[in-house]
Amino acid sequence: MSLLVVGSVAYDVIELPGREAVEVLGGSATWFSTAAAFLARPVIVAVVGSDFLEDDLAFLRGRGIDTSRIERADGVTFRWHGRYHSDMIGRDSLRTELGVFADFCPVVPEDLRDSDVLCLGNIKPELQKYVLMQTRNARFVALDTIECWISQYRDQLVSMMPRTDLLFLNDDEVRQLSGQRNIFSAAKSILSMGAKALVIKKGEHGAILFDSRGIKLYPAYPVESVVDPTGAGDSFAGGTLAYLDRVGSFDVDDVRRALAVGTVMASFCVEGFGPRAFARIRPSDLVSRMTEYVKMTSLEGERIISDISL
Amino acid sequence: MSLLVVGSVAYDVIELPGREAVEVLGGSATWFSTAAAFLARPVIVAVVGSDFLEDDLAFLRGRGIDTSRIERADGVTFRWHGRYHSDMIGRDSLRTELGVFADFCPVVPEDLRDSDVLCLGNIKPELQKYVLMQTRNARFVALDTIECWISQYRDQLVSMMPRTDLLFLNDDEVRQLSGQRNIFSAAKSILSMGAKALVIKKGEHGAILFDSRGIKLYPAYPVESVVDPTGAGDSFAGGTLAYLDRVGSFDVDDVRRALAVGTVMASFCVEGFGPRAFARIRPSDLVSRMTEYVKMTSLEGERIISDISL
Repeated sequence: MSLLVVGSVAYDVIELPGREAVEVLGGSATWFSTAAAFLARPVIVAVVGSDFLEDDLAFLRGRGIDTSRIERADGVTFRWHGRYHSDMIGRDSLRTELGVFADFCPVVPEDLRDSDVLCLGNIKPELQKYVLMQTRNARFVALDTIECWISQYRDQLVSMMPRTDLLFLNDDEVRQLSGQRNIFSAAKSILSMGAKALVIKKGEHGAILFDSRGIKLYPAYPVESVVDPTGAGDSFAGGTLAYLDRVGSFDVDDVRRALAVGTVMASFCVEGFGPRAFARIRPSDLVSRMTEYVKMTSLEGERIISDISL
Repeated sequence: MSLLVVGSVAYDVIELPGREAVEVLGGSATWFSTAAAFLARPVIVAVVGSDFLEDDLAFLRGRGIDTSRIERADGVTFRWHGRYHSDMIGRDSLRTELGVFADFCPVVPEDLRDSDVLCLGNIKPELQKYVLMQTRNARFVALDTIECWISQYRDQLVSMMPRTDLLFLNDDEVRQLSGQRNIFSAAKSILSMGAKALVIKKGEHGAILFDSRGIKLYPAYPVESVVDPTGAGDSFAGGTLAYLDRVGSFDVDDVRRALAVGTVMASFCVEGFGPRAFARIRPSDLVSRMTEYVKMTSLEGERIISDISL
């Protein structure tokens, strides 16, 4: 199988409560693929500037990520400066500098146009759409976006829904894209635009999936100490899509299982600072945390139902 | 089996966003027992004033609740005036008038001192303790409290922990009682005080259980339209303890199953206004919603673990 992600490879300046601002490797495609690399061999299509460190590319390659399609352009690498509130949940974007991303036009190399699984990470919708047009045979397409794109390019996003198998949004984005206040009506409206499934990300409270069969709940794996929430959403998507690429099957049940993998992956992400922190996680850690997660969420359903039916 | 609840039977003045204040039957023991009555025959020990309507007692009796131990005293019934914020989550307590509750001393009648399951609803800790001293043979004791009691009577609460099988608190209360910021350390500290299990209530995000075996997650059952959140915590406790009373067994797994019943019960609560709204729920509705909840939360755990272990 093959997993292609288009998104940003960037440098983030992160300010955590009571700590100095630190510049660190970041970007949606970086986080996505670092998480996905536990279960798949992701390929990144993105652009970086002349200031991008060879060492950072080497780190990604060392994780098993194909970086050969990351273009290097004259100019500076995309930068985002974020400051977290004291609750480690709310954050302000202090600065976003597109750099070489401003003129980026993602061309999918011929040999990647038949990728099975495609992640359209958070970039300008017209670039996502351009990638989508080049990958007509993708068997599974996931799309992520944010409020500023929805407010500026809603029609373009709506036009991609019929080809979207899984849409990643938070509560506000769901309301904004659908124009509906009530989250249930909002989700229904988005599915009626053609998206096969919608997962609403709720940060430390987990996620909720709306698909053709109804609703599925994914409480977050409880993390004792959150170090940095940056990249959690991308890691969630990375774990989810890597699982799907690995099993090579994309029906409702596959997606439902995949999101549990994404949930566990996101929990590892927030426990460390920067994507390099993923290097401390062994594949066996992923398996044992998933085992724990299954125990934490499993109910003796039949027994309960029989007890209350007496 | 037998289920005894000590708590308030009250009138609440509820102000919901954009609506007039409405006075309605309320109180922790009222909500608890109305929810519990789906699966058990709860007995209330409480006090009401001379203004308490016979019609409200008749409603409770009609639900199968034993109201014969509700004392009637000269004076006014306990009243709470709450105003919800526009998010229907935050709320301000505008007024609390203890009325006849100020001088209430709960005497557990002789024939109820051997009750199997005891719920010490949210009242002054010294009254909870007095009840606990009178019910030495209770096989399962649950305790609920709030911030103002923890700040004033922390020692009294701590002294009841060794007899508490299940403690119901929210995040802030857990931090306050334990004196620990980190929720994991806080939970550990409370279990070390002697409580067998602690369930942290997170409102629309569900609940998390800490017990001798670890952690269990209970995402909330997703409710399309929240009418009034008042009573959700008491309904959660009511469903949980009624299940335990019904099955008559109180080990870790029983409690873990019971909290799923509480979760579903709380979802019915918030969909209506006042405890009378429970009358619209048929026992079959409880069973079908539980069936849905089990589907929404169940993972094909073994399959996932095997897929990611390959």
